Amino acid sequence: MDKTPNWLMQRAFLTPNRIATSDGVVQKTFAELHEEVVKKAEKLTSLGVRKGEIVALLMRNRIEMVEWIHALHYLGAVVLLQNVRLTVRELDWQLQDSQARWWIVDDEWAQYGEATSVPTVTANELTKLPQKETSLQQEYALDDIATIMYTSGTTGKPKGVLQTYGNHWWSAIGSVLNLGLREDDCWLAAVPFFHVSGLSILMRSVIYGMSVYLLNTFNAKHANDIIMSGNVTMMSVVSAMLQQMVDELGDRVYPNTFRCMLLGGGPAPKPLLEACRAKRIPVYQTYGMTETASQMVTLAPEYSLSKLGSAGKPLFPAQLRIELEGREARAYEAGEIVVKGPNVTKGYLHRPEATKRAIRDGWLYTGDIGYVDDEGFLYVLDRRSDLIISGGENIYPAEIEAVLLAHEAVEEAGVTGIEDSRWGQVPCAFVKIKEGSHVTEEQLLAFCKQQLANYKLPKRIYIVDHLPRTASQKLVRRELVRLLPKI
Amino acid sequence: MDKTPNWLMQRAFLTPNRIATSDGVVQKTFAELHEEVVKKAEKLTSLGVRKGEIVALLMRNRIEMVEWIHALHYLGAVVLLQNVRLTVRELDWQLQDSQARWWIVDDEWAQYGEATSVPTVTANELTKLPQKETSLQQEYALDDIATIMYTSGTTGKPKGVLQTYGNHWWSAIGSVLNLGLREDDCWLAAVPFFHVSGLSILMRSVIYGMSVYLLNTFNAKHANDIIMSGNVTMMSVVSAMLQQMVDELGDRVYPNTFRCMLLGGGPAPKPLLEACRAKRIPVYQTYGMTETASQMVTLAPEYSLSKLGSAGKPLFPAQLRIELEGREARAYEAGEIVVKGPNVTKGYLHRPEATKRAIRDGWLYTGDIGYVDDEGFLYVLDRRSDLIISGGENIYPAEIEAVLLAHEAVEEAGVTGIEDSRWGQVPCAFVKIKEGSHVTEEQLLAFCKQQLANYKLPKRIYIVDHLPRTASQKLVRRELVRLLPKI
Repeated sequence: MDKTPNWLMQRAFLTPNRIATSDGVVQKTFAELHEEVVKKAEKLTSLGVRKGEIVALLMRNRIEMVEWIHALHYLGAVVLLQNVRLTVRELDWQLQDSQARWWIVDDEWAQYGEATSVPTVTANELTKLPQKETSLQQEYALDDIATIMYTSGTTGKPKGVLQTYGNHWWSAIGSVLNLGLREDDCWLAAVPFFHVSGLSILMRSVIYGMSVYLLNTFNAKHANDIIMSGNVTMMSVVSAMLQQMVDELGDRVYPNTFRCMLLGGGPAPKPLLEACRAKRIPVYQTYGMTETASQMVTLAPEYSLSKLGSAGKPLFPAQLRIELEGREARAYEAGEIVVKGPNVTKGYLHRPEATKRAIRDGWLYTGDIGYVDDEGFLYVLDRRSDLIISGGENIYPAEIEAVLLAHEAVEEAGVTGIEDSRWGQVPCAFVKIKEGSHVTEEQLLAFCKQQLANYKLPKRIYIVDHLPRTASQKLVRRELVRLLPKI
Repeated sequence: MDKTPNWLMQRAFLTPNRIATSDGVVQKTFAELHEEVVKKAEKLTSLGVRKGEIVALLMRNRIEMVEWIHALHYLGAVVLLQNVRLTVRELDWQLQDSQARWWIVDDEWAQYGEATSVPTVTANELTKLPQKETSLQQEYALDDIATIMYTSGTTGKPKGVLQTYGNHWWSAIGSVLNLGLREDDCWLAAVPFFHVSGLSILMRSVIYGMSVYLLNTFNAKHANDIIMSGNVTMMSVVSAMLQQMVDELGDRVYPNTFRCMLLGGGPAPKPLLEACRAKRIPVYQTYGMTETASQMVTLAPEYSLSKLGSAGKPLFPAQLRIELEGREARAYEAGEIVVKGPNVTKGYLHRPEATKRAIRDGWLYTGDIGYVDDEGFLYVLDRRSDLIISGGENIYPAEIEAVLLAHEAVEEAGVTGIEDSRWGQVPCAFVKIKEGSHVTEEQLLAFCKQQLANYKLPKRIYIVDHLPRTASQKLVRRELVRLLPKI
């Protein structure tokens, strides 16, 4: 099978009257959503958007964002989803790297257009364009690229992860074969749609015919109130969100109809899992990434007690193995997590070399470290050593180091994650100053601020005499913590 | 995606302790089922079964049959599933036509081996063979043939329908996106596994990790008792079965946990649907065939009142259209039902011409007649004019005609279906005798009995002076009923 019917179109035909999406104020059925999406596709057509073009989208979660994504897919365009927390410099880097043809931004970022050579239009301007009839994609080819999301790697250069329609399709199918599907299912989306954890909810919605209740921004009380109302049955969270919700919940207990708290975005602290167990919150721990179009491995709650801390087993169409020095590791032996499945990316945009390094023989080398127990349950020991996960956002030390090294006074720079009670981890930097130069921590921070999203800013920048390096002068990031002043 | 992990193996890994199958006496978990299947695969290996070989299976529903099917798939063999109601002559015809390499039969048919040149072994003999280690299929290629089932057509020669792993996979996926999936789901299988309605339950079981409760033979009281016990949530039936169950049920009401009565195998009588509505039996009418690996179009119960008599809308990955004189028919305009989707067969074994006729441009021309209303709901008016559906079994007039024409006294023969209160339809024959010959109805019936399964025997054989034919001398079967003696 290489094609499916256009997902939203098929839903509007099969289950026109089911609620597709709601934000608590407005709600739309699949038929209404489809109708609005056709309108938006016709507006995009009068802008000049054509099949196969990359269109970057900089938006916050709201129903209109859902509509623009589907409208671009109706035209066969490739949607580049951008993190709204990035600086305009970081955003433009993605536009240039991807050779995006258009940039559609929420009104609040209208002025960003001046910072790029890519034709920019605000959602508001676009809405005012006339509609122009066009031919819509009646089918989605599973091998076609649906979306692109940038992630960074060891080199510090962000790479565009290619996500095909097939990746999203199979991710949704793998998930339904694990989590099941009920007529009354409704997924609470409080994670951003520009992350795969959020986008995958939208994909599941049109594939399953399932409602999405979306929040513009996450707020623990608001999320708890919605769950307590009994109107949602599942929710995707990262540890920092779940911790706030558990704290806010107090003595209350979620209704029985709430059946899945899907917890991703990095290893979960055990005390949090234990608190959830005590409150009978049905937590499904999961391990996945942009490259796997969300969930790859998920722990069912029937194992939440006996396998506390495990991310579970692969989804049905997927496979997993632990590799150690070129061989498959034995049970309990830690090694690199290697995964395979139809939800795994084809590779990185314009990066054949990086793609070849990451994907070998159909297996994706995640760089993450973990082991499986004798029953095959995965335990993630550490996301790859150079990755900092802060409140569910991935931060790559090399990217921050590159910024610091660009400062005229800095000779060497090293960044690592340190523990943080609120965010799990935050970045912390160490720099060696050039002989004869002088610079303060404050000056360096101000310099970083011009180029890095806030969440990537080092919590501290320590000026040190030397950085830990191997004999071949390679930076050893995991030893940076030793340079921290003793408390 | 062209491969999935071996389904049962993956289930035994992911959900080892869930109940896979039960017959009310014995129950087996997925781990236990897998273990037994490995044993059986090793016995088949010592018999000599190899990957790619066609192995015919003549068995009644029981757990061992489920195990033999999976064991053959573990070896990469192609399973030819045969209707136990056929005569040995009909069965051997399939063996010869398919070039089956082995024939495995239940003990009660041990003597059938004498009637064929194909090496035959009984289940019992096979069980006594030693185990021989072998390499098992760790993955299923979706394009590989998993099963073959014979159906007849206008020519009267049965054709082997090729069902790939992908056909079964996508059928299961299309079904789950429509019917949903719950942890407590258990499917009552009282339809034979040699029909696609039964086999598809087994495929869904290993793909979903869902229990199957199987009955050797259908019995209305037994089926009702099982449903009343609350242990099953879904069941597949044909009209004749459902009618008996409704009659037997009396004033009782099924428990709420019973959520789907999947009704296939031909158009359903409205009084039956109305009776089910009154008893709040959640009937999902469906339209499908061997060539679509079961369901193609299914009516959700939310429409059971407003769309009574409709077979519903296509499953999510599938498409449907009505064709009339080479164009797509308008709403309410009757024409040929044409379907497309990843669950549709690649074609017929060793029949390139028949395949080309049936499948054009990816669309399967079913020969069935129907229309869609203005919302796209399908109404099946008639299975193709030459098809008689009797208690869920398909009977092809041309096959019976061919037998009658082989009688030395018969010059012309025509067969059509007539209404029957118990079976829906039964075949009825009309023959013209050669000049100077003489034969009685009883003699002709006895002649048919030697070559046709009981359910295919004409209820009556009328001797007539001429058969209705077109100007080009083509038999007009739909006019045969006019030859019936007036009552």
